[in-house]
Amino acid sequence: MEKQFKERLPEFTTLSSKKIERVYNSDSIAHLNPEKDLGEPGEYPFTRGAYPTMYRGRHWTMRQFAGFGTAADTNERFHYLLNQGQTGLSTAFHFPTLMGVDSDSPRARGEVGVCGVAIDTLHDMEVLFKGINLENVSTSMTINTPAPILLAMYLEVAAKQNFQQKKLSGTVQNDVLKDFIAQKTWIYPPAPAMRLCTDLFDYCQTEVPRWHPVSISGYHIREAGSTAAQELAFTLRDGIEYVDYCVKRGMKVDEFGPKLSFFFNAQSDFFEEIAKYRAARRIWARTMKERFGATNPEAMRVKFHTQTAGCSLTAQQPMNNVVRTTLQALSGVLGGTQSLHTNSLDETLALPTEASVRIALRTQQIIAYESGVTNTVDPFAGSYFVEKLTDDIEREALAYFKKIDDMGGMVRAIELGYPQKEIIEAAYRYQKQLETKEKIMVGVQDFVIENEPPIDVLRIDPQVEQRQIESTRQVKAKRNNAAVKAALSDLKKTAEGSANLIPNIRNAVREYATLGEMIDTMKEVFGAYKDPGHY
Amino acid sequence: MEKQFKERLPEFTTLSSKKIERVYNSDSIAHLNPEKDLGEPGEYPFTRGAYPTMYRGRHWTMRQFAGFGTAADTNERFHYLLNQGQTGLSTAFHFPTLMGVDSDSPRARGEVGVCGVAIDTLHDMEVLFKGINLENVSTSMTINTPAPILLAMYLEVAAKQNFQQKKLSGTVQNDVLKDFIAQKTWIYPPAPAMRLCTDLFDYCQTEVPRWHPVSISGYHIREAGSTAAQELAFTLRDGIEYVDYCVKRGMKVDEFGPKLSFFFNAQSDFFEEIAKYRAARRIWARTMKERFGATNPEAMRVKFHTQTAGCSLTAQQPMNNVVRTTLQALSGVLGGTQSLHTNSLDETLALPTEASVRIALRTQQIIAYESGVTNTVDPFAGSYFVEKLTDDIEREALAYFKKIDDMGGMVRAIELGYPQKEIIEAAYRYQKQLETKEKIMVGVQDFVIENEPPIDVLRIDPQVEQRQIESTRQVKAKRNNAAVKAALSDLKKTAEGSANLIPNIRNAVREYATLGEMIDTMKEVFGAYKDPGHY
Repeated sequence: MEKQFKERLPEFTTLSSKKIERVYNSDSIAHLNPEKDLGEPGEYPFTRGAYPTMYRGRHWTMRQFAGFGTAADTNERFHYLLNQGQTGLSTAFHFPTLMGVDSDSPRARGEVGVCGVAIDTLHDMEVLFKGINLENVSTSMTINTPAPILLAMYLEVAAKQNFQQKKLSGTVQNDVLKDFIAQKTWIYPPAPAMRLCTDLFDYCQTEVPRWHPVSISGYHIREAGSTAAQELAFTLRDGIEYVDYCVKRGMKVDEFGPKLSFFFNAQSDFFEEIAKYRAARRIWARTMKERFGATNPEAMRVKFHTQTAGCSLTAQQPMNNVVRTTLQALSGVLGGTQSLHTNSLDETLALPTEASVRIALRTQQIIAYESGVTNTVDPFAGSYFVEKLTDDIEREALAYFKKIDDMGGMVRAIELGYPQKEIIEAAYRYQKQLETKEKIMVGVQDFVIENEPPIDVLRIDPQVEQRQIESTRQVKAKRNNAAVKAALSDLKKTAEGSANLIPNIRNAVREYATLGEMIDTMKEVFGAYKDPGHY
Repeated sequence: MEKQFKERLPEFTTLSSKKIERVYNSDSIAHLNPEKDLGEPGEYPFTRGAYPTMYRGRHWTMRQFAGFGTAADTNERFHYLLNQGQTGLSTAFHFPTLMGVDSDSPRARGEVGVCGVAIDTLHDMEVLFKGINLENVSTSMTINTPAPILLAMYLEVAAKQNFQQKKLSGTVQNDVLKDFIAQKTWIYPPAPAMRLCTDLFDYCQTEVPRWHPVSISGYHIREAGSTAAQELAFTLRDGIEYVDYCVKRGMKVDEFGPKLSFFFNAQSDFFEEIAKYRAARRIWARTMKERFGATNPEAMRVKFHTQTAGCSLTAQQPMNNVVRTTLQALSGVLGGTQSLHTNSLDETLALPTEASVRIALRTQQIIAYESGVTNTVDPFAGSYFVEKLTDDIEREALAYFKKIDDMGGMVRAIELGYPQKEIIEAAYRYQKQLETKEKIMVGVQDFVIENEPPIDVLRIDPQVEQRQIESTRQVKAKRNNAAVKAALSDLKKTAEGSANLIPNIRNAVREYATLGEMIDTMKEVFGAYKDPGHY
């Protein structure tokens, strides 16, 4: 290599278009106070990690998002993953379940079991978790407005097998604000959606104490094209909104604060992501303490799940996705995640095969057992560059907080279309950068190959839809339909009032009411949300 | 994830068994002086990088080690790699060439073209580089004692095509000391081996000014089982030995110092490797300045090639090797390498296929173009952990320097079997750690699967050996055998004296003398090395 002191580009920027300097040195972080801004791992403001020992205590939970076909198909995959050394479960529901629609509805045609598992009634949930010790596994369910219904099903499955409800651990996503901002799987308007969501917070607080009733999610915000700082800002500001609502209903931050959990993306810009996770902990700790007066350190501690970035993967040269996922997973681990999903190499083409999901899981195991990065806590502390980047991202996020506060909060900002517009602009800028090759996706605009051989992908049995419809019809035929009707009628009455909806949902679930029946019953009271069309 | 403040293990150690603390903070590096111990990138002591702009100036050279079958087979692979975006060439020679043996010798039976390309005469080299613009590519040749012969062949190929010798750039390994320590492809005893080696230094200095006449190699030392600190210490101490010899023959450190280049392994312990590369630059800069009185900063600047660790890869679940190689490659890049080879996923099973070597190259391209890690120079500067680790590894290496100096230098230490014994002990300790599962290789002792389907591997055409033998016989039949005899006789005379051997080697090469003829001619004078059997 010859001497080369000229630079290749006029400016170097992160994936989020943040300008990066050639060199950072001690001057870059002279304004930071290590004691106040970093602290010790496991202590306020938690910049250096949620826990003092981190992965020396235990590794993150290795949790592959999985679900396809019928509950029986997914149950088989769950057992496979646990046998391969996975340490937690994560359930992907098919699109009709996400939208609160039953498989036998005309609205579900062509979608049953395609992008996740079909769950219509308690019966499906019983099959889904068959043979799994629910006291020993932590289970995540990626479901939003219908979250209380799916959790109720899970609790009933556990009850029937005599697992103790107090010992169940896991998370439901239940993040309706993110739905409005980015994922668009909304059902009800914001106000009743927030009620149902926070009803679950309240219920879990006393009834399922080890359960995280929300996973406040930046993942979909990022996948929609936001920057790292936007992902962070909108997610944490959603968190503030939930806390506001809980406080308004009389809950105490020191009590429910420890139950909040977060979910971030791991995109491709290695250092930007690490800085984002570190900033998330510091911002949230300060917010809980300073804005909400929390005094319990547990209520200030950000715990988060990470998923590598689906939108960074390419259908071209799919083996390259193993490389991307490895780098992204490493950033999540170095950022101190509590739980991790690594995408499989074929996820842009189909749901992952057993072989590809095993490679994805092995990626986590190699990082955990071979790379040595778990030996010490927060290895980036003190790095001129990473500390500066952490500080910069915090500043950017706080500026967004201020704007959203000025608008009257996140629900109002969403109604105004503000976060949606910011994300669209960032996504548009990145698309332009791809078109001009200012940013490169290897194998897409550059390093392309012709005539790639196809890879084997998972095919969903075309009989799944008919089988699932038949199965749900049988459940409906066998159940006590009078009891279902009564339970739904009770649910409707509660929806018309202001009491907590969850006990009524559990009653209906227990009678094998379908997801769609419960969702539609509440819709009669709550109404349906329509896209405001701001963007 | 529940609170968990107890630790999983009584002690956490790196791959090299160095103890790692739970937390590092500013106290850990209070004894370091950033100005003196780090400096600016591209400036003494070069801890932060060889160049001020590093990858903002240009990316590292992406250089896949390649060679198999005949020169024509490897020429095709070279063209494939260049078409896939590789930026430098790296030649793997078959075992007979490494040992100075011709393909038609009985000693070559069963080895022709198996682990590298078969090169017997200038004719093969002409075929190997056919259609490649040698002024535009940088070429590395992994060859030690026979290095002057292979470089002479390369120079003759270039001359025949009217490429200017002053414009040729690249490296020959030519690191005979490492052969004695670890690789065991020695031919002559240390004294004449050092003469031949440093003859090439001297020759290149004036005749091939852009060529690096040595790549002082830790790779094989590490593959033999050394620790990171041993790899660093023995490699740099070999460097000191070469400098000593050059100074003794009247060469000036400020002149030949800039031509030295190094070659390190990228093993699996992510931070230990990064610290090793940073320490290498600082130690060498201080050594050249303080020990040898260099005043030219170019002579203090470590430039190095990196190869990911072959011995870390597994035949089991070979796709996992993509993950390992990604992590190792990232450590090389974050450590500031000038050039990188990423191993292919199938290299434990066979020489890599086109498909697998492309994934390996894409690994580098994704790091270069998607990960953002090239945006700033030395992102770890200031990190309490990485700075402490860098300092610790420097200290360990300096302690080895002292021991070897006390023995009378590296040639003497090798004769005493000292570095060999240290490596064996480290390798033995690691084997024990694998047996007791203190260290884990994913897919080998843990996370094992049964009945793996085989993957497609490259098969070397069994006709290669016969074809190569036939080709070399034809070359011998066609050449001017009287001129060959005269050239070899001149070479022998020079070997008996003390003049530089390279001009005679070039003359013999030009007459199509074979590699084996030249090696054997010098062996008549130099004798053959026998393993001292210390270990």
